[in-house]
Amino acid sequence: MAAPLKVGLAGLGTVGASVVRLIAEQQQMLQQRCGRPIKIVAVTARSRGKKRGIDMSGMRWVEDPIKLATDPGIDAFVELVGGAGNPARAAVIAALKAGKSVVTANKALLAECGLDLAQLAERQKVALNFEAAVGGGIPIIKTLREGLAGNAVTRIYGILNGTCNYMLTRMERERLSFDECLKEAQRLGYAEADPSFDIEGHDTAQKLSILASLTFGIQVDPEAIYVEGITSITTADLEAADQLGYRIKLLGVAVKTDKGIEQRVHPTFVRKDAAIAQVMDVTNAVTIDAEGIPPITLVGPGAGGMATASAVVADVADVARGVRASPFGRPSGDLKVSKKAPMQRHEGGYYIRMLAVDKPGTAAAITKRLAQYKISMESIVQRHSSPAGGAERGKGPVPVILITYATTEDAVRKALAAVQRDKVISGRPQLIRIEKN
Amino acid sequence: MAAPLKVGLAGLGTVGASVVRLIAEQQQMLQQRCGRPIKIVAVTARSRGKKRGIDMSGMRWVEDPIKLATDPGIDAFVELVGGAGNPARAAVIAALKAGKSVVTANKALLAECGLDLAQLAERQKVALNFEAAVGGGIPIIKTLREGLAGNAVTRIYGILNGTCNYMLTRMERERLSFDECLKEAQRLGYAEADPSFDIEGHDTAQKLSILASLTFGIQVDPEAIYVEGITSITTADLEAADQLGYRIKLLGVAVKTDKGIEQRVHPTFVRKDAAIAQVMDVTNAVTIDAEGIPPITLVGPGAGGMATASAVVADVADVARGVRASPFGRPSGDLKVSKKAPMQRHEGGYYIRMLAVDKPGTAAAITKRLAQYKISMESIVQRHSSPAGGAERGKGPVPVILITYATTEDAVRKALAAVQRDKVISGRPQLIRIEKN
Repeated sequence: MAAPLKVGLAGLGTVGASVVRLIAEQQQMLQQRCGRPIKIVAVTARSRGKKRGIDMSGMRWVEDPIKLATDPGIDAFVELVGGAGNPARAAVIAALKAGKSVVTANKALLAECGLDLAQLAERQKVALNFEAAVGGGIPIIKTLREGLAGNAVTRIYGILNGTCNYMLTRMERERLSFDECLKEAQRLGYAEADPSFDIEGHDTAQKLSILASLTFGIQVDPEAIYVEGITSITTADLEAADQLGYRIKLLGVAVKTDKGIEQRVHPTFVRKDAAIAQVMDVTNAVTIDAEGIPPITLVGPGAGGMATASAVVADVADVARGVRASPFGRPSGDLKVSKKAPMQRHEGGYYIRMLAVDKPGTAAAITKRLAQYKISMESIVQRHSSPAGGAERGKGPVPVILITYATTEDAVRKALAAVQRDKVISGRPQLIRIEKN
Repeated sequence: MAAPLKVGLAGLGTVGASVVRLIAEQQQMLQQRCGRPIKIVAVTARSRGKKRGIDMSGMRWVEDPIKLATDPGIDAFVELVGGAGNPARAAVIAALKAGKSVVTANKALLAECGLDLAQLAERQKVALNFEAAVGGGIPIIKTLREGLAGNAVTRIYGILNGTCNYMLTRMERERLSFDECLKEAQRLGYAEADPSFDIEGHDTAQKLSILASLTFGIQVDPEAIYVEGITSITTADLEAADQLGYRIKLLGVAVKTDKGIEQRVHPTFVRKDAAIAQVMDVTNAVTIDAEGIPPITLVGPGAGGMATASAVVADVADVARGVRASPFGRPSGDLKVSKKAPMQRHEGGYYIRMLAVDKPGTAAAITKRLAQYKISMESIVQRHSSPAGGAERGKGPVPVILITYATTEDAVRKALAAVQRDKVISGRPQLIRIEKN
């Protein structure tokens, strides 16, 4: 029998403990699939004494993660410590330098220094696998790296953050306010005590930067991403979306344009009949558009101990089988610096919701400004809040909801600034991009 | 630069021509991804003279597919001839025997002799890749073979036939009869002149046999599959499904039971909010259930020249990169003979539609028979066709629609046979299985 792959595992939280369990339970199947056994021979975690309900017999405890990463007794290092800083970063670098293949779920680390790590892995001729870093249990990394090798992908977009999708789902279904919903999500453990990393879109942006690199052969660069979170979304927006045949999803989108690769994270109107619009609660999904073929969508659990662990184990199995692809699908020397397509030149349709001052000439003033910036409207709805309609004229601002045909971010921003200067609306207009699908 | 992978391609229909085009167009990207160029050096097809609109300069024409398969000038053989018989079969065997890696889209060939081919490929230490054989452009084979290596999959099910899904979608949306819909599908090229292979479920069964092998480590065996097509589905069934919160899809299902692996193809009630229920028209989808994690669903084009070609090219790219997995995910010597779970022992809910004779005691007779076989009902709807309801009693048979809780195929069959013997229904009852999701 072939020699076992000896694994050192750092981090024994929910995911790490599930990895230990899964490898023990699936020992036989893994051996068949890989042609050799997989053995976790050494582990480390913050607290040695903690009860984890897993069998760690036969595993050495190594106090220092970096010692573990370079341990002569291991062939591969699994990093589940998390965070872009140390010890995760130092341990991963040490493992690669020591010629160990690395499996990690650490999106922050990859977003921050993915290129450097990929270069190091290539130089050392070892694997750097990170299926679990994006989309949890969805095999999106392998699909982009190896499964769609011949496809000229033109766009990739996805629901990459379970917290945001959970909140948008509940807000839509139950007409809850953002704040009520956030409290619920926190109570149920779907949102962190400090939720800003999720709800401001930064988690999605880190994941998108990894997908964009794999898809378009560019260097990972979260700084190139325009990021907008979901904090401004109101039930009024969700109701309007519903009536217009859309749902609102926080999407990460990377698209090839003639100005470069446009990368953006923002709440998005998606047509209800699109596959991605059906994705509810904490579920994640990624849609891939390639030239000449209908879209491919992968849907599944974006988080959770077992789902993430199963992605980690699949990565370890690839190491055991001796499969080694370029971490980002192409040799890192071929990865180009992403030419950032400026957001001002983004082209697409827009949903705009404004509170119009209820006096004669308001609609004319708004439509005039839009025409000035060559924005065509697909629909306009002006709703008097009183059921009596016009009879109540003059009693307060009136919601106006617009859907535009494709235009540019620049034109919309300028038109709305002009409308504000005209003092025909009260407050700031709400602006949500429409993604064609 | 590394030596190119030299490819011989047999079959220049829609898919073959698209493969030639795709490899030419994506030459540079493929080279980056594989570390070496991919070159089609020789081709064959039924008719040499046919205009195909592709550039075949630099490609030798070899008249005999078997000569091409064993040509010393090629490293890999791509078989797009189709059919389980010769020349496809002989050419694939010849290529493997000559030590060439093989890429094929031929589901019929794999269903019929997949195990033999896998054994031969393993003995020769070459690849046998067939991503395009199931689910067209959806990377389901690679996902099952490599991407979910650590998952203990308990069930896999999918919409694997575009023709059937197209017909069910149109019947549902437009309340078309089966026959009208079939004519439309034939007119649009979505159904063959002889549609029986598709609509009777055999195409789905061939594909399911391949997925089941990869998923459960069993030998490919389409004979082990219970197969029922969609020809009995009426608009009355689709309307009832809609009202009860379901859609009807032709599914291929393979599930681990304590009696063995149950493999079946039949029209199925699926809950409207399941990902698979959203899959419309010719689109395909596969859902994978594994222990302890939410389902993973892959959705995409099940057919079409470019979609299928992209899967073929991804397979060729794996050959170029030197990736070689066991064709069915495990060494063929480890693949077990599938213990066929008898369909009579299938457990699940059922939709039953009957035409009850309109006389006193009918409902009592039906419910008595169901109770006799320990079948519990979730719902029962009896609809008098006249809007006046009871006033028209005695004027003809009355549709009765039942949804049962989980029971066995055996119990349902016996109960319905008894109901028929009781002469309280007219004609044969309609029976559609409900798939939990």
